[in-house]
Amino acid sequence: MSTLAVAMFLPAAADLAVGNEEWQVFATGAALTLFIGVMLVLTTRSNIRNLSLRQAFILTTLSWLLMPAVAALPLVFADLDLSYTDAFFEAMSGLTTTGSTVILGLDQTQPGILLWRALLQWLGGIGIIAMAISILPLLQVGGMQLFRMESSDTSDKVMPRAAQIVTAIAVIYVALTLLCALIYWLFGMTGFDAMAHAMTTIATGGFSTHDASLGYFQDARIDATATIFMVVGGLPFVLYLQAIRGRPGGLFRDSQVRWFLVMTALAVFAVTVWLMRTGSGDLTSTFRLAAFNVVSVITGTGYATQDFSAWGPFAVALMFFLMFVGGCAGSTTCGVKVFRIQVLHATARCQMRRLLQPHGVFIPYYNKRPIPEEVTASVMGFFFLYVISFAFIAIGLGVLGLDFLTAASGAATAISNVGPGLGPTIGPSGTFAALPDAAKWLLAFGMLLGRLELFTVLVLLLPSFWRN
Amino acid sequence: MSTLAVAMFLPAAADLAVGNEEWQVFATGAALTLFIGVMLVLTTRSNIRNLSLRQAFILTTLSWLLMPAVAALPLVFADLDLSYTDAFFEAMSGLTTTGSTVILGLDQTQPGILLWRALLQWLGGIGIIAMAISILPLLQVGGMQLFRMESSDTSDKVMPRAAQIVTAIAVIYVALTLLCALIYWLFGMTGFDAMAHAMTTIATGGFSTHDASLGYFQDARIDATATIFMVVGGLPFVLYLQAIRGRPGGLFRDSQVRWFLVMTALAVFAVTVWLMRTGSGDLTSTFRLAAFNVVSVITGTGYATQDFSAWGPFAVALMFFLMFVGGCAGSTTCGVKVFRIQVLHATARCQMRRLLQPHGVFIPYYNKRPIPEEVTASVMGFFFLYVISFAFIAIGLGVLGLDFLTAASGAATAISNVGPGLGPTIGPSGTFAALPDAAKWLLAFGMLLGRLELFTVLVLLLPSFWRN
Repeated sequence: MSTLAVAMFLPAAADLAVGNEEWQVFATGAALTLFIGVMLVLTTRSNIRNLSLRQAFILTTLSWLLMPAVAALPLVFADLDLSYTDAFFEAMSGLTTTGSTVILGLDQTQPGILLWRALLQWLGGIGIIAMAISILPLLQVGGMQLFRMESSDTSDKVMPRAAQIVTAIAVIYVALTLLCALIYWLFGMTGFDAMAHAMTTIATGGFSTHDASLGYFQDARIDATATIFMVVGGLPFVLYLQAIRGRPGGLFRDSQVRWFLVMTALAVFAVTVWLMRTGSGDLTSTFRLAAFNVVSVITGTGYATQDFSAWGPFAVALMFFLMFVGGCAGSTTCGVKVFRIQVLHATARCQMRRLLQPHGVFIPYYNKRPIPEEVTASVMGFFFLYVISFAFIAIGLGVLGLDFLTAASGAATAISNVGPGLGPTIGPSGTFAALPDAAKWLLAFGMLLGRLELFTVLVLLLPSFWRN
Repeated sequence: MSTLAVAMFLPAAADLAVGNEEWQVFATGAALTLFIGVMLVLTTRSNIRNLSLRQAFILTTLSWLLMPAVAALPLVFADLDLSYTDAFFEAMSGLTTTGSTVILGLDQTQPGILLWRALLQWLGGIGIIAMAISILPLLQVGGMQLFRMESSDTSDKVMPRAAQIVTAIAVIYVALTLLCALIYWLFGMTGFDAMAHAMTTIATGGFSTHDASLGYFQDARIDATATIFMVVGGLPFVLYLQAIRGRPGGLFRDSQVRWFLVMTALAVFAVTVWLMRTGSGDLTSTFRLAAFNVVSVITGTGYATQDFSAWGPFAVALMFFLMFVGGCAGSTTCGVKVFRIQVLHATARCQMRRLLQPHGVFIPYYNKRPIPEEVTASVMGFFFLYVISFAFIAIGLGVLGLDFLTAASGAATAISNVGPGLGPTIGPSGTFAALPDAAKWLLAFGMLLGRLELFTVLVLLLPSFWRN
């Protein structure tokens, strides 16, 4: 909360700079949030190092509920006519780097609000990397124990080590954001647009300062920059750290990175061919459209340069399933994630070979190492819960009256933290504003579920969690 | 093939009885098929007992390809104007008890053809039970090893034992079919309609002799009979055998049966409430509609008494996901099957509890017995491949130009062997006739895949299968 409060001063400054009265909204919000945040720090600081597992689960889920609840305040108080439901939805969509929006008329919105939305995604992005490195492997959530650092046997040693790594990665994160902003600016964006978009690109968030998203700029160089930096945001940030420390090989040898790049390339290729057959553009502009929008969906960013839900049956079906893929573990992306698809693939392959030789021993490998059995089980459990959660959210949206395409793609886009759904209502050319309030809360819950890798939230629903 | 050939004489007799020239089509088909079938029996009879695992996989898949290829012949030669693609689709849909049809104008179709379609489903139904009892547990496909019989340690002993059980179950199958037909007939169906529908009810197949499916009869007693016998077709037939042998308790104590009945009841309740809120009917008729159509979808039968894809968002979304459920293992139904959902649920629950106590030992149970680890892995692998296969078929249908709802529900209805899809084209009020040929082949492949529990077919695609 204290971090959020400090962050709120930035949009206040932005509004003040252009002489907008709304700076008061942010300043008040910041003061209030900072007060509560500092109070909480002061009253609880002594016990932080002795967290039990249960407390860690509760703390993680609660903080991801509290943050959007607070971050929504400026959005409510500002001159946007948003209900608290809308504001919470927008804040949750921001912090989880989803990118679904309820605000129409971004081009006329005050810079403070636009900066605040970008900041939420940017902070969410680094928060997610930090969680993926420090908390999730310790909680052993959904196979994330694969990414436990070698020295993490005793929790005393880990936390400082993890903190060091997170700090180093944060520096890289800032540097990449500035680099991205610089390039955007060189290619013709205003300084403000460049900064706001750089923050939401590297966080694979997807909020834009224009209703037409990046389609507003109509510039091939900007599209290319965004495409590259979305991919950068979808790779494991730990490997950048290794690369800087003189071991760049990891980035190229990592099987998760390779799978991610190959899957993306295949999808871009397929969509390009489809659009060439059905569309009217030349090869270069078609490839540019396909690459940008496919990368945006697979990384869960959620930018669009065209309404891809009007690209015809194949593109719609493919985009729908790509939503679930996500990027690599340890990146700012969400979704099932590439390493889980690899683990599932390796396991299914082993099982099929065992069918032929029931007494043979077949061990699934990930990144040239055998996958421990509890990781396999964990990943498979994750996948089952992912599908079930998706189904329940989609059915729930059906109860609330959303048509099949909207309900199915809405559930998918929320749980995978992508951004836009498919179809005329919530597709790239629409917004989530028209949905009923209950649907917005359900979708916000879906975003939380996806962002915290399901288990972290679902474990709280176990009766045995609350016993003793 | 010999069995199919003998079965072909029945529609020949039916056509002859009403003085229809088409009896020649069946008689010729029967003679041809019988000739090839008997030749095959004679040339290969000596080696049947020495099948290797590889041969068992190839034989299973090949025979499920050969049967529809042959069963399609009378449909091509008859006066229906069907291409071979259409005929193969219809035959595959019959033998896999799917129930998707390309024939419009069933009310004007000759009895021979109608009987042939019903027979295909009826034979398919008992074939599936036989496979689930004798072959799949031995092949260890997708967790089916849970249903291995106790004495199945050495393959010499099993086959005769399994053959005995299958014979006993076949008798029950015939008895249930006759009982169902008798009740249909008492409630006003013609003898022919009663027999044809009894065969497709107990097989949870879904072919009807009328375009309006069971909605043609507009009779609450017929609806109730069909609903009950679809449920009967969805329960494990081995338990009927036990019940007859004096142990009826198994039927009530079996956790798979209980889960299936509870899930079905919940879905019927939810749809009834939804239809009461949005529709205009009274409670009794609404409940009748909901119960019939929900049971038809969850068991993968595919009858309809109304176009349930016009029942509004919630019903459409729920029906879509219910398609995947299916009935119990060892029944005539297909889909993921209830026991797999139980295994997945038990495993996910254990994993969540392990998150809280990383050093605790949690063992998932099925039917009060601990689930062996290889069964868990096998079921999870099955679930992953099911979702992936569904996604690939849906994307493939997208390539062929089908809209999202048609592609997604078409893929779901094929792989789960349900019958109708959702939406105006392939929904309960439409047929599959209008789809492009390539889509029909893809859907037929999906039916085969679902019917043979994925692994049996997919294992043939492994390069290592063909080595040595």
